[in-house]
Amino acid sequence: MRDFSQDHRWLSINTATVRKSRGVDVPLVDIIEACAQRGIRAISPWRDQVAAAGLDVVSKLIRQHGLELSGYCRGGMFPAVGADALKAARDDNRRAVDEARELNAKCLVLVVGALPGALAGKALHKDIAHARSQVRDGIAELLDYAKSVQMPLAIEPLHPMYAADRACVNTMEQALDVCDELDPSHSGALGVAVDVYHVWWDPKLQAQIERAGQSRLLAFHVCDWLTPTTDLLNDRGMMGDGVIDIPRIRDWMEAQGFAGYSEVEIFSTGNWWQRDMAETLDTCLARHRATV
Amino acid sequence: MRDFSQDHRWLSINTATVRKSRGVDVPLVDIIEACAQRGIRAISPWRDQVAAAGLDVVSKLIRQHGLELSGYCRGGMFPAVGADALKAARDDNRRAVDEARELNAKCLVLVVGALPGALAGKALHKDIAHARSQVRDGIAELLDYAKSVQMPLAIEPLHPMYAADRACVNTMEQALDVCDELDPSHSGALGVAVDVYHVWWDPKLQAQIERAGQSRLLAFHVCDWLTPTTDLLNDRGMMGDGVIDIPRIRDWMEAQGFAGYSEVEIFSTGNWWQRDMAETLDTCLARHRATV
Repeated sequence: MRDFSQDHRWLSINTATVRKSRGVDVPLVDIIEACAQRGIRAISPWRDQVAAAGLDVVSKLIRQHGLELSGYCRGGMFPAVGADALKAARDDNRRAVDEARELNAKCLVLVVGALPGALAGKALHKDIAHARSQVRDGIAELLDYAKSVQMPLAIEPLHPMYAADRACVNTMEQALDVCDELDPSHSGALGVAVDVYHVWWDPKLQAQIERAGQSRLLAFHVCDWLTPTTDLLNDRGMMGDGVIDIPRIRDWMEAQGFAGYSEVEIFSTGNWWQRDMAETLDTCLARHRATV
Repeated sequence: MRDFSQDHRWLSINTATVRKSRGVDVPLVDIIEACAQRGIRAISPWRDQVAAAGLDVVSKLIRQHGLELSGYCRGGMFPAVGADALKAARDDNRRAVDEARELNAKCLVLVVGALPGALAGKALHKDIAHARSQVRDGIAELLDYAKSVQMPLAIEPLHPMYAADRACVNTMEQALDVCDELDPSHSGALGVAVDVYHVWWDPKLQAQIERAGQSRLLAFHVCDWLTPTTDLLNDRGMMGDGVIDIPRIRDWMEAQGFAGYSEVEIFSTGNWWQRDMAETLDTCLARHRATV
């Protein structure tokens, strides 16, 4: 297992972590500069942040700073009702692949979607099995395109509390079943993003990480699970402030040969997004060394 | 599949559903009277409510009304740090079995516990595997006692969002693994409580209900998953107000021979606990017929 205690060589910042500073939106360009100043070698930006800054601007800036992208957030949201909505999702996912390619990301992270309409508060149906079949079909189709431009797709199993509205792939086992069906040769074109927040509770986690193996372990995301958790989406904790045994999970990943970045992804309306970006980033660095 | 549309013969009220009326605690005796007035044939009371009313009083009242207990809530909370705390949990669980026996409950529901201290906001350790091993040992020991007084134990897999603080048994598969280890003969002494709120998301749900079979399917709890859900514990929805396809899950249960009560268990600080108990109960009856 790699020693993280001496530096932050293997730290990546998911830019959602500092989406806000003192409650105010931070432009992606400012986030990139702040990361570069700290010698952070990798980030994982969100599409809306990239779009606001301009893809060309972001592309130039990360090359200028020699920044890597541990991933690109995000594609997915495949399930839909009606041919037009399905086609819109397909087209948007291809654009996400293109952007990830332009930014030279390690992978495009897929938050696969769930019951259409649920995220807006009104599910159009209750058939989660059907949503899952649309996810499978959507990934299958996108995979052909992603392979053609050599952009790996990382299915991110989301915590089951998001099964209704964000992602109906909710365990590593389920994600790997899709991988095994669509990429039986373990080509490296399809794998998983392992976010400890989503999977730490799973009694089969270690076994499924072993099943995945190096070729499918495309990304590793960290934050922490707080007790109590006061919001289903935006109350993630800083590493070390919650109950997740992060080093144990990282050890399981690295035992399979994972050697990539540990990407900090924290959504925190009430705490970290209220602090100054500098404090949040400096805390990420310190906790990366001490508790990841 | 049984026809629920004509009557509420197979409805049970978990008394937490009407724990409060217009925001004020309701004595269990009043809940029992209100249920009896409506021809409800079964309830599932909580230990704190029974203790407040007096076990003898409750026992007499339910016999007088001919009420059944679809379950008794609850035993569990096995993990602990230190011999004294483990013994206290063991002793308390034996008392729960005795109370369930006195009330002639169908089963004692087990919410098995998780990381000690987490429910109070400060986990004493992060070793969920150790907590799970204490749960296994705690159930094994309690099972001997429960068998001696013929009180079935129903492990309730709780939604993974409760893995830190309430229950580290989080899937049907995991619960049934414990059942298979401790009760290989499917004696009926050990099984599961299937609460749709906790398990609806699970891609293996149907397969695990089939695996369980009639002898292990001891209870069936219903409510609904709201989008959005604003609180991890106390924002459960009334059946029909959320995204769970309840009849489909009930169909899977009944295909295995489950013929027990459909128990309504809703924790709802902001909505149902603010309404009048009569309205909440009448709505449970209507929704039981229309959407369960």
